[in-house]
Amino acid sequence: MFHTPRTRMRFSVLLWAALFLCIASTNVLWAQEADAPEFTLQSDSNILWTCIAAFLVFFMQAGFAMVETGFTRAKNAVNIIMKNILDVSIGSIVFFMVGFGLMFGTTSTGWFGSDGFFLSGYLFLEDGSTDYWTFAFWIFQVVFAATAATIVSGAVAERTKFHAYLIYSIVISAFIYPVFGSWAWGSLFAGGGWLENVLGVGFIDFAGSSVVHSVGGWAGLAGAIVLGPRLGKYASDGTPQVIPGHNIPIAALGVFILWLGWFGFNPGSTTTVGGDLAVIAVTTNLAAAAGTVGALITAWIKFGKPDAGMTLNGALAGLVAITAPCANVGPMSAILIGFIGGVIVVLSVLAWESFGVDDPVGAVSVHGVCGAWGTLAVGLFAHESYGGVNGLFFGGGLTQLLAQLIGVVACFIWTFGTCFILFKVISATVGLRVTEDEEMEGLDFGEHAASAYSDFTIMAR
Amino acid sequence: MFHTPRTRMRFSVLLWAALFLCIASTNVLWAQEADAPEFTLQSDSNILWTCIAAFLVFFMQAGFAMVETGFTRAKNAVNIIMKNILDVSIGSIVFFMVGFGLMFGTTSTGWFGSDGFFLSGYLFLEDGSTDYWTFAFWIFQVVFAATAATIVSGAVAERTKFHAYLIYSIVISAFIYPVFGSWAWGSLFAGGGWLENVLGVGFIDFAGSSVVHSVGGWAGLAGAIVLGPRLGKYASDGTPQVIPGHNIPIAALGVFILWLGWFGFNPGSTTTVGGDLAVIAVTTNLAAAAGTVGALITAWIKFGKPDAGMTLNGALAGLVAITAPCANVGPMSAILIGFIGGVIVVLSVLAWESFGVDDPVGAVSVHGVCGAWGTLAVGLFAHESYGGVNGLFFGGGLTQLLAQLIGVVACFIWTFGTCFILFKVISATVGLRVTEDEEMEGLDFGEHAASAYSDFTIMAR
Amino acid sequence: MFHTPRTRMRFSVLLWAALFLCIASTNVLWAQEADAPEFTLQSDSNILWTCIAAFLVFFMQAGFAMVETGFTRAKNAVNIIMKNILDVSIGSIVFFMVGFGLMFGTTSTGWFGSDGFFLSGYLFLEDGSTDYWTFAFWIFQVVFAATAATIVSGAVAERTKFHAYLIYSIVISAFIYPVFGSWAWGSLFAGGGWLENVLGVGFIDFAGSSVVHSVGGWAGLAGAIVLGPRLGKYASDGTPQVIPGHNIPIAALGVFILWLGWFGFNPGSTTTVGGDLAVIAVTTNLAAAAGTVGALITAWIKFGKPDAGMTLNGALAGLVAITAPCANVGPMSAILIGFIGGVIVVLSVLAWESFGVDDPVGAVSVHGVCGAWGTLAVGLFAHESYGGVNGLFFGGGLTQLLAQLIGVVACFIWTFGTCFILFKVISATVGLRVTEDEEMEGLDFGEHAASAYSDFTIMAR
Repeated sequence: MFHTPRTRMRFSVLLWAALFLCIASTNVLWAQEADAPEFTLQSDSNILWTCIAAFLVFFMQAGFAMVETGFTRAKNAVNIIMKNILDVSIGSIVFFMVGFGLMFGTTSTGWFGSDGFFLSGYLFLEDGSTDYWTFAFWIFQVVFAATAATIVSGAVAERTKFHAYLIYSIVISAFIYPVFGSWAWGSLFAGGGWLENVLGVGFIDFAGSSVVHSVGGWAGLAGAIVLGPRLGKYASDGTPQVIPGHNIPIAALGVFILWLGWFGFNPGSTTTVGGDLAVIAVTTNLAAAAGTVGALITAWIKFGKPDAGMTLNGALAGLVAITAPCANVGPMSAILIGFIGGVIVVLSVLAWESFGVDDPVGAVSVHGVCGAWGTLAVGLFAHESYGGVNGLFFGGGLTQLLAQLIGVVACFIWTFGTCFILFKVISATVGLRVTEDEEMEGLDFGEHAASAYSDFTIMAR
Repeated sequence: MFHTPRTRMRFSVLLWAALFLCIASTNVLWAQEADAPEFTLQSDSNILWTCIAAFLVFFMQAGFAMVETGFTRAKNAVNIIMKNILDVSIGSIVFFMVGFGLMFGTTSTGWFGSDGFFLSGYLFLEDGSTDYWTFAFWIFQVVFAATAATIVSGAVAERTKFHAYLIYSIVISAFIYPVFGSWAWGSLFAGGGWLENVLGVGFIDFAGSSVVHSVGGWAGLAGAIVLGPRLGKYASDGTPQVIPGHNIPIAALGVFILWLGWFGFNPGSTTTVGGDLAVIAVTTNLAAAAGTVGALITAWIKFGKPDAGMTLNGALAGLVAITAPCANVGPMSAILIGFIGGVIVVLSVLAWESFGVDDPVGAVSVHGVCGAWGTLAVGLFAHESYGGVNGLFFGGGLTQLLAQLIGVVACFIWTFGTCFILFKVISATVGLRVTEDEEMEGLDFGEHAASAYSDFTIMAR
Repeated sequence: MFHTPRTRMRFSVLLWAALFLCIASTNVLWAQEADAPEFTLQSDSNILWTCIAAFLVFFMQAGFAMVETGFTRAKNAVNIIMKNILDVSIGSIVFFMVGFGLMFGTTSTGWFGSDGFFLSGYLFLEDGSTDYWTFAFWIFQVVFAATAATIVSGAVAERTKFHAYLIYSIVISAFIYPVFGSWAWGSLFAGGGWLENVLGVGFIDFAGSSVVHSVGGWAGLAGAIVLGPRLGKYASDGTPQVIPGHNIPIAALGVFILWLGWFGFNPGSTTTVGGDLAVIAVTTNLAAAAGTVGALITAWIKFGKPDAGMTLNGALAGLVAITAPCANVGPMSAILIGFIGGVIVVLSVLAWESFGVDDPVGAVSVHGVCGAWGTLAVGLFAHESYGGVNGLFFGGGLTQLLAQLIGVVACFIWTFGTCFILFKVISATVGLRVTEDEEMEGLDFGEHAASAYSDFTIMAR
């Protein structure tokens, strides 16, 4: 019979009680009407579009949940689901409490914001009326934060303790993601980050190849390394073994949902109703299509067969890659950027695997590596006028490319560094990895006393 | 071999022939150009937003279908699906024929509308041009009606005759839902309901915690009581047994779809492009997040493990609870309202179970009980200006709270009362519950001569 | 052990290399700034709505993937998924390279366009600024093209070689679909097709009952005929056998997703923010609802039970049928058109089956036959003012009906003719159908060396 140790339960309850007290304690904080800056009012139609885009991005949570569930084993499906829904739930609350302020609050240093916690001081204009734009901007940003958080769950899947994962999830949404975000996007709202003015030209990451995807990918890399590979992933001689997912149709559904959600992610990053959003929709779609084709061909050559997992990840690779340059390139460049993303993702998955990093769903390659590729692609392909670009353009010259590289490196150092420490600390305190017995039996049973498919026989593997 | 008795088939054919004749007969009705009131024309952008919101709400049908399928057994999955798709299909047609007129037609009594059936007289303005706003308003309202109807299918799952369910579905969409709706929302269009002016302050239910969700929940309660529990739900000594769902990933997908759809449900209830919709998106999202966390903690304490079913229902509980107050509270209140909803839903599920009410998916608790909680929360938390609210505010005073209570009680009496009679009448005439043999074998086989998963072995339970 | 023959791999690689070279070679093409016509600039809000509608239509790809997967056998699920994601990916690229130009490029003949390939010459206005409307129009059109392509995958499911399918997919998106499209819709952008002025009144197909759905359906018919039925579909005496799908809940999810997507497909075909889109949303929803009911009743009478597959296809039948007339009929007509579509689809499925045509998911009936019915329904029900129509109206008289018939016939001759030749040529060269052994074992194993459900035992059938 299963029973969660009473101590673990008590620990968790305490943790949550702390979280809730934290919320309640804001009565005080709230009362202090901060002297926040006033922002440009946005038109109602911009609010509408930004909210609709946020809804599409929110739906990506369902896409991640389906992709990660489908690409892993049936015995861990409930655990995957639980991590995903908690990512967005805890993420929403702590991004409200802490993250948004760190990312978009007023900053004098360029390293993080220092007001706007609990949206305190940001909800009203000076004349006392509601600052609607803050709400629209917030809902758009919170679903971005949740996206970064949830990317990690795939990389650390099938072996991480549930309550350890929740601690990670709180820290990335409250702290790690917002700080890098403030470097690159702080001036979108109140502040202004150091990366935004780097080398004079400034780091360009329009919709977040680095800010969202690489952050998620490198966090996942840190987790996968600290955790070590799943039991059975490597044979005794070190040869990597294939551990196929248990539900490819649902993984494919997840990819389609993510592709749909990206039409909010990229075009929505305009936060403005205008023609640009149509251009971005086109480049986004073409890059996804080309990424699919690029991965299909690469896998076909590598394995001698059109591999489904790689092809589906190819679509995501194309999407991640176009996320930074989507607003600054034309359709031909988008096809190239996506296609190369699709090639890269296959090679990257094989490379990490050969390095001994076990990333069950390929999240490090899709989001980390292709996010870096997309960010650099801005330096290679960006052009001031859309459509004139049909191949290498190199619009910003070496300086722009260097600025992009600085951003990519900064993203890796910050995210991988802090997350590596975080996972090590979790591992040394409350414990990060489940026992071997639990891993063999499945986390659904061990962590949740449940089975995802009570009416079916799940084969042991 | 299976065969449906010829008599049942004939009965059904007759039923449907009647429905169709009813449609055809409206040639006559139609010809009478009713002397309908003329409504304020809405701008094109409001029409656009209202329609987009309606599309999101429509998608909630998919969410309900997945949640209810996932939380029940594989042997009844086809039946669940069929009930869901017929709810929206029959619901659309009868709401067009009867329901919309009862809910939004001209009323002198305040108890129900009396014109607008088949939209007759509501399609043209006085100058003969098309009244586009009526169409936009109708598509938004019809998907609300379908939501109320489909909530019930979860509560009566796994034991109800298919054709009996269809009769219920017609009656709730044509009559029970619209009448309560006219009391609370009648003046949105033509009429004006008695609840809208109760105690001077009027009953406030912005997006339908009571009007949609409690109606669905209490109807489900009536059905569950009249039907009695599923075979095996209670041991011989009366102890409730857990009957876990058969597909948790698909249930989780359903929850994500519902959460997405709620961004149409609540912000869309503005039916106007304006800053409010952003505020409502924020309160909706925070309440859902807090509901998830609230249910997770409560279940963790109660059961010693983080339970997936309860946590997923917690998200829905938060969403149902914020539906009434979403436009009148700030983010902090939204978190509290949602969190409490998440706590309530777990306790409520256990309570109904201990009372002997078998509600396979928790619909009565999620929609009925949390709908009531959300409606009362308007009285506790509502404030004229957003964001100033960080906890109990009690903006409307005791009178407002009392008005909310009157609405909650009226909703229960009307819906539970009429539905109890309806299910009793169905039970006494065409029969409500399948035979024990059919229930054991599964309704998919007995009602539809099908299996949801023809390639897999479904374990008997 | 599985291994793909090296020759087939080489062939495929060559094919893809050719495709990619083709992209790269456009450097030259691109440089020639074509003297393209300048189009009416569209407002930002029209661009927004057209893009949002395109996103909804894109999501239909997920719907098709789920419907087709759910209605076929588990052993072929990966193959279905791969065909679907490649349809939209390859389709996006070749429609960009070739298809859009053929469909909407300048034409002097009325039979096909002759510029705009690679969007060359269509991206800038004369003053050098970006022609945003082209991008919005293109993203809307490309998802329509992908819809037509993907309809076919259901009709040819469970027996088609993967690389043969990719060849088909390229040809329909680059050539077959755009040419018929140019006949009916060419003047939407630059050209003007011969059907648009036929008989003086012009062929009317507002959102594509013929242009998209019948094209997909008749292409599927050609494929199904050339392929022949699946092993086991007909008993030795020629009696059709039922081969039920393996996942009805996921098929139902697909239907709900398609229904949602249709709210982009039909209302979005306005490409303009205006009241019409609300009317079209209403007619679309009512027709889908009535199609569901129509198919339910017909199947109930025919089989003595409420059949899930037929009922779900009934919803799609209603949606396909209303696609052409959606903007020109009122609610009552929409109900009739959808209801008749639902009746037709059941009879049509049985008829094709009895003719020896094996269409695993009913795509020929849903899209081909009901597409034709919807196109003709324009001639029977169209009216200048909405809502005045409650039954047969026959607004355009015999001439309009004849124009519709000409379009329907032209669509069949062109699509079925070219696709029949195409599938015959593929069959005679690279081969169209998998071996009997592979078909028995499942295409997932034979074509992709994979299983869709690695944790479950798939029963042989």
